[in-house]
Amino acid sequence: MQIKLCDIIAKLEAEVINPAQEEIGIKGLASLSEAGPDELSFYHDGRYLNDLKSTKAAAVLVSLEFNEEVGHVPLIKVKSPSLAFNEIAKDLYVLESNSYEKGIHPTAVIAEDVQIDPVTVSVGPNVVIGAGTKIGEGTTIGAGVIIGSNVEVDENGYFYPNVVIYDRSRIGKRVIVHGGSIIGSDGFGFEYDGSAHQKIEHFGYVIIEDDVEIGANCTIDRGRFGKTLIGQGSKFDNLVQVAHNVIIGKNCIFVADTAIGGSCKIGDNVTMAAQVGVAGHIEIGSNVVLVARTGATKSLAGGEPGKPAFYSGFPAGPIERVRKEMVFPRRLPNILSRLKAVEDQLSTE
Amino acid sequence: MQIKLCDIIAKLEAEVINPAQEEIGIKGLASLSEAGPDELSFYHDGRYLNDLKSTKAAAVLVSLEFNEEVGHVPLIKVKSPSLAFNEIAKDLYVLESNSYEKGIHPTAVIAEDVQIDPVTVSVGPNVVIGAGTKIGEGTTIGAGVIIGSNVEVDENGYFYPNVVIYDRSRIGKRVIVHGGSIIGSDGFGFEYDGSAHQKIEHFGYVIIEDDVEIGANCTIDRGRFGKTLIGQGSKFDNLVQVAHNVIIGKNCIFVADTAIGGSCKIGDNVTMAAQVGVAGHIEIGSNVVLVARTGATKSLAGGEPGKPAFYSGFPAGPIERVRKEMVFPRRLPNILSRLKAVEDQLSTE
Amino acid sequence: MQIKLCDIIAKLEAEVINPAQEEIGIKGLASLSEAGPDELSFYHDGRYLNDLKSTKAAAVLVSLEFNEEVGHVPLIKVKSPSLAFNEIAKDLYVLESNSYEKGIHPTAVIAEDVQIDPVTVSVGPNVVIGAGTKIGEGTTIGAGVIIGSNVEVDENGYFYPNVVIYDRSRIGKRVIVHGGSIIGSDGFGFEYDGSAHQKIEHFGYVIIEDDVEIGANCTIDRGRFGKTLIGQGSKFDNLVQVAHNVIIGKNCIFVADTAIGGSCKIGDNVTMAAQVGVAGHIEIGSNVVLVARTGATKSLAGGEPGKPAFYSGFPAGPIERVRKEMVFPRRLPNILSRLKAVEDQLSTE
Repeated sequence: MQIKLCDIIAKLEAEVINPAQEEIGIKGLASLSEAGPDELSFYHDGRYLNDLKSTKAAAVLVSLEFNEEVGHVPLIKVKSPSLAFNEIAKDLYVLESNSYEKGIHPTAVIAEDVQIDPVTVSVGPNVVIGAGTKIGEGTTIGAGVIIGSNVEVDENGYFYPNVVIYDRSRIGKRVIVHGGSIIGSDGFGFEYDGSAHQKIEHFGYVIIEDDVEIGANCTIDRGRFGKTLIGQGSKFDNLVQVAHNVIIGKNCIFVADTAIGGSCKIGDNVTMAAQVGVAGHIEIGSNVVLVARTGATKSLAGGEPGKPAFYSGFPAGPIERVRKEMVFPRRLPNILSRLKAVEDQLSTE
Repeated sequence: MQIKLCDIIAKLEAEVINPAQEEIGIKGLASLSEAGPDELSFYHDGRYLNDLKSTKAAAVLVSLEFNEEVGHVPLIKVKSPSLAFNEIAKDLYVLESNSYEKGIHPTAVIAEDVQIDPVTVSVGPNVVIGAGTKIGEGTTIGAGVIIGSNVEVDENGYFYPNVVIYDRSRIGKRVIVHGGSIIGSDGFGFEYDGSAHQKIEHFGYVIIEDDVEIGANCTIDRGRFGKTLIGQGSKFDNLVQVAHNVIIGKNCIFVADTAIGGSCKIGDNVTMAAQVGVAGHIEIGSNVVLVARTGATKSLAGGEPGKPAFYSGFPAGPIERVRKEMVFPRRLPNILSRLKAVEDQLSTE
Repeated sequence: MQIKLCDIIAKLEAEVINPAQEEIGIKGLASLSEAGPDELSFYHDGRYLNDLKSTKAAAVLVSLEFNEEVGHVPLIKVKSPSLAFNEIAKDLYVLESNSYEKGIHPTAVIAEDVQIDPVTVSVGPNVVIGAGTKIGEGTTIGAGVIIGSNVEVDENGYFYPNVVIYDRSRIGKRVIVHGGSIIGSDGFGFEYDGSAHQKIEHFGYVIIEDDVEIGANCTIDRGRFGKTLIGQGSKFDNLVQVAHNVIIGKNCIFVADTAIGGSCKIGDNVTMAAQVGVAGHIEIGSNVVLVARTGATKSLAGGEPGKPAFYSGFPAGPIERVRKEMVFPRRLPNILSRLKAVEDQLSTE
């Protein structure tokens, strides 16, 4: 697979700086330092300027504002080098997202009444789909995925191998779920009756809205009754845990190993960096950033669009205050020596 | 599926306050704010009193002690509204726990000498069961579950899809394991010989006693030799890690993302809230609560039944002490200003 | 299965102290306190001396330096009791690693052009292998493992049930991966375009070098472009997360629940104890130990072979400094009382 450099330039409708061999075939994409003469690269961070100056790439995507003096390599000016690079990648590489054959693999075990269009979907080997489930057009279901009963999956979803979707889940359009994630497991609810922990049945469900992506080996529990909701466009890294009856807004970001306690409400445009924890039954406002390892134990007020409220620490607080507190221990030697000096002065008076 | 309100009242042997249309059919369960006129709700927390006062539910379960003035909705008085609600849920909803058909799916791959009663069990599609394994009566094995060789599973277990159980595991009665959990993987043991980490073979096993529930994507390692033991009635949330040779007592609770180091001994009635860590080779006494994010680095003394010992912090300490220490940094400005005042006074004398 | 004690002694070429019934058949291995008269045990830690003195084992492996007075049990002197015990375990127990039958199970779904030698490999039930993939000799692929397209797996690997390996991964010799781990999922990369998080395509791959072991339910993302690399001999416990484009050196150790951010470079012989976090785009030098729960936010200098640099805390710092800082809050009462005394003295002057 290769694409002529002139075709890439035409597709991007871009201005080109420095002479380019426009007929050359681009065979791949690579970093500035690793790219060879038939590969395209991109430059989007000043830290890599030296790599740009010595790159052997066939051409480099740069931003419209780029104004460094680099003469040895064709520079293709685009609004976002990273997103343009991304677009070319989709043309140049066969990604899983288009490698499965259409149709239903003969080893798949699909209940009789499942609504599914065998022409547009791709259902891989050993997939299991339970009774009463509907699968939307254009959806890809990877090998070994288990989908329960009465599940609704809308169009153009992509489920990587060994995902499990429990009964009654409702999944929107263009949702991506990576391998091993479990959607709809029982919430963690028990009531101690004096001698044993009695199980609280969870007959609720999970709703995942359109354009959500969920990483590998995540766990999203269903509601005790009613829903656990993942809002439109939210994105999850790997190993993220969402407990029962959590309501998450739109366009949120959850980085690896984050865990959200039961019945929380999370606003829109919330970012939780890695290894964050949120206690149950609290509310995180919209436009909030919890930096890595923040542990929220109480509700936190939201910020403004484009001007998020940052929190940090455990228990979580406004980031400016917590940052000061985190370095406080380092002031101990100074405090102790000053206290000692004061004491000495007083004792010698 | 629906149940007459009078039948619910009769089942619960409950007193009813306010006039009720006892012949009405209850079609579902819902929260106070979301319930409609053919749904039942419950009230167990004063924070929801306003929801109760405006609920449109057909009836509401309340506690025996309930004495608020609420006249517009039938109130069904029971010992525990939450558990009564739970009982009705089991009647009203078809939960996974009774949705699998009895019998062994033709795609299951079961070794010849496996002891299993095809009349009472439910073995889903693509299940694999290894040689020498015994499966108890009434057990449900979800699609894609892989059970190794020489495993013993007692009666009425429930294993959700894609669980993996390694060789030699022994699992008690009524054990529930949610999707993707791995039971019996090798402990993490290596011995550095000066040039490489030599693998320590783990030929032990995992014992899970009766009435244990394990969440989704948990990992429980087997012993190096001998056992890793999960005591009767203990409950695990999602993504919990139990290392090799850990011994856990009865009726413990482990919330999401908790990790327990190798060869620990955990007593009975221990609760570890979310994201707790316990170092290897230590002992946590019975009736201990480790609050969220506690990191135990040394053995911790137990509490009394009904009067647990609470620990917090990293390294873990008694919660009263740690709580004081956690807010200490906030006293810094006060300490510094007082110190400055003292210094100023001395320098001007 | 049993082995004569004399054969064990001969295999280890060991000196024996105290009279031994060398013809006795050893049927198993056990701890000092649990071993019976037909079992072998080992002693390698002074804490277990009382267990040694009262053991009922048929014989006990001890180190060459052992010089306690223990007369009632045969003592077999070896360089490393733990590793010798390990060697005997391999002879005495049928571990999964040699329990799968050779050959390809008829339920496996293997693309036509896969290069695989059906005589030396073991491919379990319901395995799926995609087009263009090569599987090395002697490799075992457990039930339900899904291997994508254009993957290379070298010889003598062992993949436990329900592992998922995405397209283009390259896996070295003798690599072990435990159940449920996901190798090669997309990195977590999005670019916000003002209204939505646009997905950054990840067309890179994962390279796992020889002799790596990966625990259960781990997640290792592929590079955006180019590689995520796990160096030779590195070992991963359960639930470890490695983000896209991370480069990990040789012989590293990652304990449970550790997460490494995107594009990090980790040197050789690095140990990260449990629940460690490493921010993206930083460098951890060789011969570094991050103790449990360390959170590294900046690059950290390496140590020397045999003399590692220890770091602790969040944000991470040299362990000596952090240890002092962690106990600082406990000095507050003393500081406050001294400050009060000084103030009182000044106010009464």
